[in-house]
Amino acid sequence: MSKFIPAEIIKKKRDGKSLTEDEIKFFISAYTDGSLPDYQMSALLMAILLKGMSLEETHFLTQTMLHSGDVLDFSDLIGFKVDKHSTGGVGDKTSLILAPIVAAAGLVVPMISGRGLGHTGGTLDKLESIPGFVTGQTLTEFRKLLRAHSLGLIGQTKEICPADKKIYALRDVTGTVESIPLICASIMSKKLAEGINGLVLDVKFGSGAFMKTQADAESLAHKLKDIGERGGKTVVAFLTNMEQPLGRMIGNALEIEECVSILKQDENAHLYKDCEELSVFLAGAMLWLGGLESSFEDGIMLAQSFLESGLAYERFEAICRAQGGNLQNLPKAPAHHTILSPSPGFVTTMDTEGIGYASLILGAGRIKSSDIINFVAGIECLKKIGDPVKKGEPLAILHGSLGSDFNAAESRYLKSLTFGATKPKTSPLVLKVIA
Amino acid sequence: MSKFIPAEIIKKKRDGKSLTEDEIKFFISAYTDGSLPDYQMSALLMAILLKGMSLEETHFLTQTMLHSGDVLDFSDLIGFKVDKHSTGGVGDKTSLILAPIVAAAGLVVPMISGRGLGHTGGTLDKLESIPGFVTGQTLTEFRKLLRAHSLGLIGQTKEICPADKKIYALRDVTGTVESIPLICASIMSKKLAEGINGLVLDVKFGSGAFMKTQADAESLAHKLKDIGERGGKTVVAFLTNMEQPLGRMIGNALEIEECVSILKQDENAHLYKDCEELSVFLAGAMLWLGGLESSFEDGIMLAQSFLESGLAYERFEAICRAQGGNLQNLPKAPAHHTILSPSPGFVTTMDTEGIGYASLILGAGRIKSSDIINFVAGIECLKKIGDPVKKGEPLAILHGSLGSDFNAAESRYLKSLTFGATKPKTSPLVLKVIA
Repeated sequence: MSKFIPAEIIKKKRDGKSLTEDEIKFFISAYTDGSLPDYQMSALLMAILLKGMSLEETHFLTQTMLHSGDVLDFSDLIGFKVDKHSTGGVGDKTSLILAPIVAAAGLVVPMISGRGLGHTGGTLDKLESIPGFVTGQTLTEFRKLLRAHSLGLIGQTKEICPADKKIYALRDVTGTVESIPLICASIMSKKLAEGINGLVLDVKFGSGAFMKTQADAESLAHKLKDIGERGGKTVVAFLTNMEQPLGRMIGNALEIEECVSILKQDENAHLYKDCEELSVFLAGAMLWLGGLESSFEDGIMLAQSFLESGLAYERFEAICRAQGGNLQNLPKAPAHHTILSPSPGFVTTMDTEGIGYASLILGAGRIKSSDIINFVAGIECLKKIGDPVKKGEPLAILHGSLGSDFNAAESRYLKSLTFGATKPKTSPLVLKVIA
Repeated sequence: MSKFIPAEIIKKKRDGKSLTEDEIKFFISAYTDGSLPDYQMSALLMAILLKGMSLEETHFLTQTMLHSGDVLDFSDLIGFKVDKHSTGGVGDKTSLILAPIVAAAGLVVPMISGRGLGHTGGTLDKLESIPGFVTGQTLTEFRKLLRAHSLGLIGQTKEICPADKKIYALRDVTGTVESIPLICASIMSKKLAEGINGLVLDVKFGSGAFMKTQADAESLAHKLKDIGERGGKTVVAFLTNMEQPLGRMIGNALEIEECVSILKQDENAHLYKDCEELSVFLAGAMLWLGGLESSFEDGIMLAQSFLESGLAYERFEAICRAQGGNLQNLPKAPAHHTILSPSPGFVTTMDTEGIGYASLILGAGRIKSSDIINFVAGIECLKKIGDPVKKGEPLAILHGSLGSDFNAAESRYLKSLTFGATKPKTSPLVLKVIA
């Protein structure tokens, strides 16, 4: 019989006390192996949400979740292994641009991504909008991809962090998602399992992010970095602006189109300058972390050169082919609707979360995890903050299918914008680098 | 499909907002009928424990739990129906004294009691220590007892407050017992289901009570009274002292012995003056509530007269007989152990909860609900606060069986007492009456 009584551990956290490493290990392990019931786990989760956890407790929680499954070991592969994690935003497709840049430059990128839920999209869904692209590789196949391309883009496997999977599903239905220590442990346990040496974090704040203020985002960034470093990784965290969608495209196939345009540096690439800039920044930090350059600034220049030389696009094409995807044949929406500006002036603010929900109305994402995505659905934002508009000028193009509720999506989109007579100040995209 | 999403209701409470009557009804009803899982209920319970509930929410919760089962209707029985509820103490056997007093005086007492758990005893266990006494009557049999004796002493039936039963079992294993609104709703839903017109509450504070301070107990008393009144009952609440065990006897058969002595007013009755006094006070309030006297003071005098006339004992004997019990044949403990005072002086404090646990060591109660009680086990407290003791003088007699761990019980008992050179001030037994 265990020396731990679950209700006593719950009460300890409920009363605001710190749990010991052994108590956390016992509770999480017993829950994962099924000997501790859901109802005790959900009571503890609510107590954690309301009473918090110290960084030390969060570290123990992360480590317990990490070791609930396989921890990948790529030490046989030559080169520094590095990944990026973003806390999620609307139109955020930087992973698909920076990963081929960094792999082409000589580091190994074992990228395990998730699906989208709520107003933010998931890298895996975007990839699967490429016809034939497979993300369900086994760990053996993943290793082969990494050996051949220094890059692999796959989804969570059942071997990795089973505790996180089980706990996340419970948090989703018990109102216990929005807890900083639980978020930290969930993110970091999965990243630490990837067998990486370094990690770049993109912590977003603003109307489209989970963290609405810079202060909250900065606090989360420091915590994630601390947990990563306690786990033995080198970590750099970025605080970046999510006051408006990143780039122009929102929606799975549309975002791939934007990525391809940036990677090819084609005639439309100038439309997506903000997305390119952030991708190169993050890639630069990864290259610097991996020791290919001795400063962050030189890392950025190296990243830029791999983008401009076409070597990054070449790597992207190669990994798409290797994972079964056909980039030549991206699906297009059969129906469109243009949103016209109701007034003249400048776009002054964009409620990015509202815009995310407008894209959900069209079918670009999931409200609940069983929802099916329409890959071609989405929004092309023609005007962003600071852009001048005439009354009746196109603001955005909605992409959808014949049955799409364009009216509802238009109304949600327009409700998310404000207009003013003078050009607003624009905020920098990257607010801070915490190295 | 229901318009309510359980996780949204949990989040609302988690964020400190008030739930509506409809939300509470939906959540509790769905949990009771099994369509809402334990893990969502336990998350809500923890959020309620940590974020609280307004009196209005507590009223809605009480009413929903009340109407989850049968609400008894004794309107066909002549007379005011009244009951008493105590928040639980050590040696508290007033129910068994006041119930026959009040019934003999002409009111109807439909008393539905619970079993003991932890350091406080349960009325039902005490009754069952009387050989042959049955507490498992059906509601039809209960009605017959009330018609014949104006009194019935039974246990919870499955028809009454099934929601409370299910929720209480969950609270017990999820660290969510110690919540004032949940405690209020649990107590009051069961009492409101009894078909009573009035209720007297005995809210205890001190070392043996759930509420350690008078302020906390007073706040609980006001809440319980409010919920009872919103439920249409007349309620009087007492704040009473539980700084030491009530009376002398702790343990089931021993407590019946004390009750019989008080009811018979025999040669030992003077040993139990505090218990008699509180019982008569509470009975007096019940008689006043029931309109038999126009003041609380006159109620007390009426109660005292029914005790002294022997009519209360007669009623107690009759109800025991009617429920199968044989008072002539109370069991006695086969083994005893006397605790001697380690020092001279005065008994200055008694940790009543500690003394309750000493009685648990002997088998007088349950630590978990599946434990089996030894009816003859218990403690006779010979010295109480303010009593002078000589070194080596008997402090208490432990009652048990041959295998009882008298040493452990003695050590726990002695650890619960302090001695001093000067006689301490004693606090009044009844601190306040909230009418």
